[in-house]
Amino acid sequence: MIKTSNSQTLHHRRQKLANLINFPVILWSGNINPRNFPANVYPFRASSHFLYFAGLPLPNAAIRLEAGKLELFIDNPPPSSALWHGEMPNREQIAEKIGANAARPMAELESRLEGAATIALQDAATWTQQSQLLHRWILPQQPPQGIDLELAKAIISVRLTHDAAALVELRKAAAVTVKAHKAGIAATPTAKSEAEIRAAMEAVIIADNMTTSYNSIVTVHGEVLHNQQYHHLVNPGDLILADVGAETQLGWAADVTRTWPVSGKFSSTQRDIYDLVLAAHDACIAKICPGVEYEDIHLLAATVMAEGLVDLGILQGNPQDLVEIDAHALFFPHGIGHLLGLDVHDMEDLGDLAGYEEGRTRSKRFGLGYLRLHRPLRPGMLVTIEPGFYQVPAILNDAHVRSKYEKIINWQRLAEFADVRGIRIEDDVLITDNGSEVLTSELPNTAKDIEEILPQISHAAKVMG
Amino acid sequence: MIKTSNSQTLHHRRQKLANLINFPVILWSGNINPRNFPANVYPFRASSHFLYFAGLPLPNAAIRLEAGKLELFIDNPPPSSALWHGEMPNREQIAEKIGANAARPMAELESRLEGAATIALQDAATWTQQSQLLHRWILPQQPPQGIDLELAKAIISVRLTHDAAALVELRKAAAVTVKAHKAGIAATPTAKSEAEIRAAMEAVIIADNMTTSYNSIVTVHGEVLHNQQYHHLVNPGDLILADVGAETQLGWAADVTRTWPVSGKFSSTQRDIYDLVLAAHDACIAKICPGVEYEDIHLLAATVMAEGLVDLGILQGNPQDLVEIDAHALFFPHGIGHLLGLDVHDMEDLGDLAGYEEGRTRSKRFGLGYLRLHRPLRPGMLVTIEPGFYQVPAILNDAHVRSKYEKIINWQRLAEFADVRGIRIEDDVLITDNGSEVLTSELPNTAKDIEEILPQISHAAKVMG
Repeated sequence: MIKTSNSQTLHHRRQKLANLINFPVILWSGNINPRNFPANVYPFRASSHFLYFAGLPLPNAAIRLEAGKLELFIDNPPPSSALWHGEMPNREQIAEKIGANAARPMAELESRLEGAATIALQDAATWTQQSQLLHRWILPQQPPQGIDLELAKAIISVRLTHDAAALVELRKAAAVTVKAHKAGIAATPTAKSEAEIRAAMEAVIIADNMTTSYNSIVTVHGEVLHNQQYHHLVNPGDLILADVGAETQLGWAADVTRTWPVSGKFSSTQRDIYDLVLAAHDACIAKICPGVEYEDIHLLAATVMAEGLVDLGILQGNPQDLVEIDAHALFFPHGIGHLLGLDVHDMEDLGDLAGYEEGRTRSKRFGLGYLRLHRPLRPGMLVTIEPGFYQVPAILNDAHVRSKYEKIINWQRLAEFADVRGIRIEDDVLITDNGSEVLTSELPNTAKDIEEILPQISHAAKVMG
Repeated sequence: MIKTSNSQTLHHRRQKLANLINFPVILWSGNINPRNFPANVYPFRASSHFLYFAGLPLPNAAIRLEAGKLELFIDNPPPSSALWHGEMPNREQIAEKIGANAARPMAELESRLEGAATIALQDAATWTQQSQLLHRWILPQQPPQGIDLELAKAIISVRLTHDAAALVELRKAAAVTVKAHKAGIAATPTAKSEAEIRAAMEAVIIADNMTTSYNSIVTVHGEVLHNQQYHHLVNPGDLILADVGAETQLGWAADVTRTWPVSGKFSSTQRDIYDLVLAAHDACIAKICPGVEYEDIHLLAATVMAEGLVDLGILQGNPQDLVEIDAHALFFPHGIGHLLGLDVHDMEDLGDLAGYEEGRTRSKRFGLGYLRLHRPLRPGMLVTIEPGFYQVPAILNDAHVRSKYEKIINWQRLAEFADVRGIRIEDDVLITDNGSEVLTSELPNTAKDIEEILPQISHAAKVMG
């Protein structure tokens, strides 16, 4: 069985929740989802809320939390399962491991539901079961109501900042992710396709017995923001944008992006933009400390980008004014980052409840509306910082955009940067008591360091075999 | 967009189905399944029945088949999706690519449902939608009824044997799988854990822009038949059992198992059993030809295993008698194989309808009941042949088993084979007009060849870097 955080940590998490609410809570772990037929399944991923308080990815289980006590509901494996799956721990062994106060078969859950709040799971099989048992709709796509909303807010307040046990896991995920990116860089000189670079990166994650925390992006078309195709050949003039992160067996995630030149050398235009994105990245991290508004970090990145694009002659005007009319977002059309924890967008199953401080909602502005986090930062929060520059045809060829920003963009100058389709630099940043700590700092991010490490790593890889 | 089989192939498949039924058919492709939150999804896998007739893995689509004609139902991507996903083909472009006779938005599906049969998808979101639209329960875990049953039988009769386009894909999957196994063997001398060997194998599959067709088994505990843990360290006396297969982008699968010694050399006991399993494997393949009952292939494997175990002094008695009392199944407790195609257990979403000839049902015998295929073989069928030997504690320590087989097993002799926990050798075998063709024959399977290739491959891997 997987090692879990010690039961003291789990007990402490349960107690923190108990301090915030005065009703019982049932958290389901979720089902194993079939892929193309019942025996061929997707790798199981337990609900993050369940993982946080139960500590183990147990399929088809539920926990009842009340006043800091945990009751585990899970069925023992049928005797026949030993043939196929080997000896599995029984209910009592699992209960002891996670520090449960009681353990019962699933059938007894029904008698312990009264007055209980819950959180909807993503898979339809489970939320249907939740709805049936609790006699109300528990829908993943709708905001929670009543005690379910109270529960969601309480869990968010507990999970927003990470305890020591969580940080141990998050550092493990970060370390393996750093290794994966180094392997991707090392594989580039001999790789023929995006898929080969992806393979080198994910192999590191698999070799460490982890999984990817999201579907990897490894592409020469970084301008397609959620690109999940890997069939393109890689050519010397291309930049590889790799957004790949590991997830530990207990579910804790990392989320890192690097962009590097296939040839081993950035062209001068690629390097200009790369340095600018890095300047935005570094400025944001330098500014992070408790009390700072994350939106201000985003706006700082927008301003640095606008200033730099003016300096490069791509944008024209006063940088502050440009940000106010969202000109930065023509090239940086997403938020500066998000919460990171058990989910790569932590607690995004609850919509914006976790990302947005109570009373705040998404901006209607193109340059702000994609921001996933809008809270003052606090020690123990983990966020990504991920500025980027992209030439997205859907934006830059849009007639409305072209007329609105006609005089602001120097199209002729922009054309000189045609070899910069997409660049993003993303690190995982922990807010500390007096500033921040970059959990992924072992991975080089300056153009110089990347240019230096690229042939070095590949040479080392060749020698080591 | 992914290359599909040419539209003539697809047209031919649709026509074959039309020759068997006289009612319209709607096949859904299925939804993208969320993992821990809506934006973090499992890699999409379209329904195999949809893939067979539509030819492309299109999420959230449906096709209507009638008299050989295909109507495609799919919504165009929203304009905003170009920002995140790049320019996607529109409905008309997809329709042309798959040779559709008409193409409509999803909302129009409702008006084209009358009298239509369908097949349940696995994901609850889709089968709920199927049930609502068709005004009857369409449940993946229940046998189809009425026209849905007629449709299932018709599709089975078309999909049971593979056309040329399918074989092109199946050979691709087999070739990449062979490469993956060679990489696993090559990685073994330097690997510290099962996870590292798995990584080397899956990296080959990812590098070829394919996916695994099922969750890999890569373990030193081959006696746990469905072992999906990868944390064990590998030690010189261990055997690695690796059951890993690739799936092409169009969904066609391979399914291969090899077992090799970590040290590079089988012990004499490991080699005795390995040679026996291989003898069963070879005897089965030698017997395969059109008209032969697959159950007889299974019984042949059982007999060869029983004979060999008698020769080794592990079992005592007449081999034929031993098979009749299921003594072979103490060490070979699963079937000799299954259908292979778009699903790794092809069409197992339909229960035993595909695997079992009409009128046949599962045997109650322990030594036969796990057989997944019970039909006479026909040219164009693809099956696995996968005999094995396992010392499963849940079987061998069972009090009932120990008393029933007390005099048949020489326990003292068996104890000498303690270092043989699990061995399986599995290949993908196409039934041809006059015999068979092993699609995975490029992968060595004799003990000698494996012992020879192991240091060779690893040496080559070191030199090539």
